[in-house]
Amino acid sequence: MEEVDHLAHERRTANFDVDAMKVVWAGSRRAFEIADRVGRLVASDPEFRKDNRTSLGRKDLFTNTLRKAAHAWKRINELSLTEEEASMFRFFVDEPAYVDLHWGMFIPAIKGQGTDEQQKKWLSMAYKMQIIGCYAQTELGHGSNVQGLETTSTYDPKSDEFVIHSPTLTSSKWWPGGLGKVSTHAVVYARLITDGKDYGVHGFIVQLRSLDDHSPLPGITIGDIGTKFGNGAYNTMDNGVLRFDHVRIPRDQMLMRLSQVTREGKCIQSDVPRQLVYGTMVFVRQAIVSDASKALSKAVCIAARYSAIRRQFGSQDGGPEIQVLDYKTQQNRLFPLLASAYAFRFVGEWLKWLYRDVTQRLQAGDFATLPEVHACTAGLKSLTTSVTADGIEECRKLCGGHGYLCSSGLPELFAVYVPACTYEGDNIVLLLQVARFLMKTVSQLGSGKKPTGTAAYIGKAEYLLQCRCNVQRAEDWLNPSVILEAFEARALRLAVNCAENISKASNAEEGFTDLSADLLEAAVAHCELIIVSKFIAKVQQEMEGHGVKEQLQALCNIYALSLLHNHLGDFLATSSINSKQAALANEQLRSLYSQVRPNVVALVDAFNYTDHYLSSVLGRYDGNVYPKLYEEAWKDPLNESVIPDGYHEYIRPLLRQQLRVSRL
Amino acid sequence: MEEVDHLAHERRTANFDVDAMKVVWAGSRRAFEIADRVGRLVASDPEFRKDNRTSLGRKDLFTNTLRKAAHAWKRINELSLTEEEASMFRFFVDEPAYVDLHWGMFIPAIKGQGTDEQQKKWLSMAYKMQIIGCYAQTELGHGSNVQGLETTSTYDPKSDEFVIHSPTLTSSKWWPGGLGKVSTHAVVYARLITDGKDYGVHGFIVQLRSLDDHSPLPGITIGDIGTKFGNGAYNTMDNGVLRFDHVRIPRDQMLMRLSQVTREGKCIQSDVPRQLVYGTMVFVRQAIVSDASKALSKAVCIAARYSAIRRQFGSQDGGPEIQVLDYKTQQNRLFPLLASAYAFRFVGEWLKWLYRDVTQRLQAGDFATLPEVHACTAGLKSLTTSVTADGIEECRKLCGGHGYLCSSGLPELFAVYVPACTYEGDNIVLLLQVARFLMKTVSQLGSGKKPTGTAAYIGKAEYLLQCRCNVQRAEDWLNPSVILEAFEARALRLAVNCAENISKASNAEEGFTDLSADLLEAAVAHCELIIVSKFIAKVQQEMEGHGVKEQLQALCNIYALSLLHNHLGDFLATSSINSKQAALANEQLRSLYSQVRPNVVALVDAFNYTDHYLSSVLGRYDGNVYPKLYEEAWKDPLNESVIPDGYHEYIRPLLRQQLRVSRL
Ligand SMILES: Cc1cc2nc3c(=O)[nH]c(=O)nc-3n(C[C@H](O)[C@H](O)[C@H](O)COP(=O)(O)OP(=O)(O)OC[C@H]3O[C@@H](n4cnc5c(N)ncnc54)[C@H](O)[C@@H]3O)c2cc1C
Ligand SMILES: Cc1cc2nc3c(=O)[nH]c(=O)nc-3n(C[C@H](O)[C@H](O)[C@H](O)COP(=O)(O)OP(=O)(O)OC[C@H]3O[C@@H](n4cnc5c(N)ncnc54)[C@H](O)[C@@H]3O)c2cc1C
Repeated sequence: MEEVDHLAHERRTANFDVDAMKVVWAGSRRAFEIADRVGRLVASDPEFRKDNRTSLGRKDLFTNTLRKAAHAWKRINELSLTEEEASMFRFFVDEPAYVDLHWGMFIPAIKGQGTDEQQKKWLSMAYKMQIIGCYAQTELGHGSNVQGLETTSTYDPKSDEFVIHSPTLTSSKWWPGGLGKVSTHAVVYARLITDGKDYGVHGFIVQLRSLDDHSPLPGITIGDIGTKFGNGAYNTMDNGVLRFDHVRIPRDQMLMRLSQVTREGKCIQSDVPRQLVYGTMVFVRQAIVSDASKALSKAVCIAARYSAIRRQFGSQDGGPEIQVLDYKTQQNRLFPLLASAYAFRFVGEWLKWLYRDVTQRLQAGDFATLPEVHACTAGLKSLTTSVTADGIEECRKLCGGHGYLCSSGLPELFAVYVPACTYEGDNIVLLLQVARFLMKTVSQLGSGKKPTGTAAYIGKAEYLLQCRCNVQRAEDWLNPSVILEAFEARALRLAVNCAENISKASNAEEGFTDLSADLLEAAVAHCELIIVSKFIAKVQQEMEGHGVKEQLQALCNIYALSLLHNHLGDFLATSSINSKQAALANEQLRSLYSQVRPNVVALVDAFNYTDHYLSSVLGRYDGNVYPKLYEEAWKDPLNESVIPDGYHEYIRPLLRQQLRVSRL
Repeated sequence: MEEVDHLAHERRTANFDVDAMKVVWAGSRRAFEIADRVGRLVASDPEFRKDNRTSLGRKDLFTNTLRKAAHAWKRINELSLTEEEASMFRFFVDEPAYVDLHWGMFIPAIKGQGTDEQQKKWLSMAYKMQIIGCYAQTELGHGSNVQGLETTSTYDPKSDEFVIHSPTLTSSKWWPGGLGKVSTHAVVYARLITDGKDYGVHGFIVQLRSLDDHSPLPGITIGDIGTKFGNGAYNTMDNGVLRFDHVRIPRDQMLMRLSQVTREGKCIQSDVPRQLVYGTMVFVRQAIVSDASKALSKAVCIAARYSAIRRQFGSQDGGPEIQVLDYKTQQNRLFPLLASAYAFRFVGEWLKWLYRDVTQRLQAGDFATLPEVHACTAGLKSLTTSVTADGIEECRKLCGGHGYLCSSGLPELFAVYVPACTYEGDNIVLLLQVARFLMKTVSQLGSGKKPTGTAAYIGKAEYLLQCRCNVQRAEDWLNPSVILEAFEARALRLAVNCAENISKASNAEEGFTDLSADLLEAAVAHCELIIVSKFIAKVQQEMEGHGVKEQLQALCNIYALSLLHNHLGDFLATSSINSKQAALANEQLRSLYSQVRPNVVALVDAFNYTDHYLSSVLGRYDGNVYPKLYEEAWKDPLNESVIPDGYHEYIRPLLRQQLRVSRL
């Protein structure tokens, strides 16, 4: 069969070097090559097919995931993949599974909080998957407030053991991924009680299931917490419930890097600084930001390709209709998301650098930048995941009716993605932490303490409070320093306004609480400034490939100017710009859309996603949408028979007026 | 077992008459009584249980729906329900099914477009469900652009028949609900071709399946289009695909109220005015707006009750933690949605009146208000469904992690609701129609033609272009006329700005296209003004019951001021208010939140939803969330066995390092 590329025309009109852009997107030529190779490996292996995922029942779906996870582990070993490649491999398998928590939370927790000895013992087994672990923190009654966890771990000096117990129903562990059906072990967070005193929440390694026959150990009640949002999606994961009835573990299974309990039951602090733990947090959050760019780019890729195929209205003289991608409203919804995908990609890359930087500093005992880094990563986690969740759904709507079919790939992408707004810190709770940092930084301005890093602009408060935007023509908005200053002025002025209003309250804590809705907006402004500035910095780097820089410049401007438009209230209320300038920004935005339009399909091709990874009929590389949609439909279980089950009981009697009616 | 009301305290603190509010919400005492009675009937009938819906596979789910639909029909007959009660009954059964299209689209299409004779013949069968019909308009290649449909209906004067045919793959009918597995008949939209000429799209009644054995008639290929978004959700519906291979139907099955084809094959227009068809459209859209208020209120009810139960942080001296409902950020997300639910309810009620009004006018041959009515209903459909879809997801996020469980009810509510943004007119396409109307109205301002109804304010252009908001204290924002004027000024000025910018373009059509993103904002402003003004009008009516009016006043102000805050850019850029006034509006909003807080649970109780209808563990009337969540979990199929299927194949060999690795 001849293969036709229905998007060939779109690809021809692009005026930049797509291959070079692929490298920029991947981060480096090496990263590109690994991703490309591993992506193809997974895509070409029939064991990893996922097109049937949304129609499987929970049990089949889950067994299927177990099968894939085992096969992936086998392949990773057969191919002797490096750690980086293995993690890339799991990424392309693209199915939430217990292994995510094993590698992503269980192992890092032991690395971060275990002593050298503990690491040696447990990690060597974990690396070989001789044990499978999960991360059991959240309880039925407590998620965000970790300090409120109720599970207890009481030291019994008689037997040199901890007794782990769930004293109430709400203390049941609830949500940990991999817990429900698979994990043999968990890092369990529980209140350490020794010598009659409560020392707060600590981590403990607890074996949950027998390594012989997988049955739960005595005193342990364990199960899955039930169906979650969407078909397929996160239902491949066994998020679990766990109750302890006085379960005993040896003393040396408390993670003792930071605090120790002695044989006698004394709790002592080690001399390892507690701050070291934050390194792990920065690592986890940079991974989440990087995932956000992947999920959003996936959705954008589907919507962009389909929008180039889909035609609606405006046929002249019987010619083809208009591609919906040509409608300005479609562009105004899609292009800022495309720009955001790139923006998140670059800020994610920068966060990787930040992680290395902060790790070095921590090791050198320099904790000065921690509050700023904490605020920055918390804020970026919150902002990028929120925008991505909403953006995926917008992409689905951009596909009209067909986006509602599972075969579009978008419903499952949305359902599997949204919990990122909740786990690893509820997005609102995180933004409030950013706001606290901002208020503190502003309040210290007089004290001579100079804000650094992503907060450095706050040090320019005096200037930023009185500067005026001097945009006079639409093109002036193409100047990065003009954009940067407008975003800095907005962020700073919102923060200072909040600080002033708080200072009017009878007490600062009450003021903070009362104004917390405004504070969220200040926090968002701070985070958007970070992303804009990192995007600008990226675009100012040397870059290979014809037209690559120009496209990224255009996307960077679209990102900034569309934000400006969406938050116009902020910019105008703080007089960071005036309404004439706002209108000019809009005008510039429109012309940027025209500039990007011929490149859109190539700009999503640059993500280099395989059709397997996208798993979307609408997003197919070749754009051959309609025959494939038609083909997919017939695979639905309902189409196994022409006459539906239930016809004889429920349709025929109705049509024939033979439903037995017992008039009351 | 003793029943404890965990929300009793919340209910005690309410300072208004909940029973009176229930009547206001329902629309009248009579409406309340019907809804209350029918709601309980459905809830108490075990045949209608829906708690297992999200874990059924597609086939079981579908058969289950057939069973419920038949049982509902039986009960409706047994109880001799009126048409109004029957439709209420189906609403409380709360499961999308072929009957929705039969009653909601098939019958109205024949009523609106069939001749008296056709109505007599077909409706008598349809009312008794001796035939089951669907509405087959959309095709694989065409949805929004109805005029572009490709299915043909060619008149053959030899046999006095139409030949219905699908000439291309993209002409396959695609999406019609009830089509895939159930309907015996359809109103099929196809291009009428007679005498060698294409007369555009018309409706035809086509039998699809044998009334004897349900098999598709010759020339008809028919099936389900596959899984859609979410577990349960819209997968209870057999949205279908349909292809015709030269299928013949008698001439009198063309719906001939407006156009007729004679025995000789001449196409003639009847003297019935085409505008009459718009009555049906107004009816369908008012129903969608009313559904929006129901879906949003359902989500808000769940989130509000759970937020009063959920506690997180801030325990002092071992006392209980803070209810998350007390956090200002939670209030700032939830309360505007609560206010929107009420706002949509009242504007929906007003639309019912509008429908009656427009029907009378049409019958009297008065078509003058049609363009305004069309713009108003299109806009309100678009706005209320978009806000509701986003609002449901926000409510889900307001429930933290637990909102992600299907047992919260929110994932399914979202998945089943979102297509309302797409069907019956894509929301963006509809807003563009509103924008067209606005531009036309503005352009005719000089001509002496006075805008009426919801567009009357445009007639005050001269005043609204120069008026100034004179709010000086936060309380000034409580004055309805101040709010109204600010919203009128904003809407008018945005529209006039657009009109001016369009007039600068070289041609008006191009100008409209280029500025369409701005035009959407003007359209939204117009629609929000309508809702605000109808809410204000409602609150100004006489109302019984202690405190009822005060609560609605507060909600009305919350609705308006939160919109003002969310669209601050509009208000400031058009100088409809200044930034000082914006800050005062925010201040007023905060104090309104405090005023409403003690009443929130009672305000959602006023919806009078049964636990069956809510089908949410988090939204239970008694607030007994945790034990029930725990109980629900164990019902998951994965918990049928302690050791998961697949353990022996995929987990044990992995733990034991026995995955057969074939080193390459
Ligand atoms: C798919 C998924 C996977 C998960 N995996 C794991 C896992 O592997 N291991 C594990 O231990 N946990 C896991 N979790 C749990 C997750 O970490 C928690 O759900 C998360 O921390 C949010 O906490 P919560 O659910 O208690 O929300 P809550 O804190 O109860 O949030 C409810 C509402 O209250 C608001 N709120 C809470 N506190 C405040 C405040 N101080 N100020 C203002 N508003 C506030 C929130 O914004 C939210 O709107 C997972 C959750 C999900 C959904
Ligand atoms: C659950 C469900 C049930 C349905 N039930 C039925 C049914 O019973 N019977 C039936 O006949 N149909 C039914 N439909 C089909 C439905 O009516 C169409 O999906 C709807 O009309 C949208 O059309 P579309 O899918 O072609 O979207 P498209 O028009 O292709 O939309 C794709 C994108 O293009 C944009 N766009 C399109 N035109 C323009 C324009 N002029 N300007 C700017 N942007 C534009 C849209 O905004 C959207 O972003 C159903 C659909 C769904 C999802």
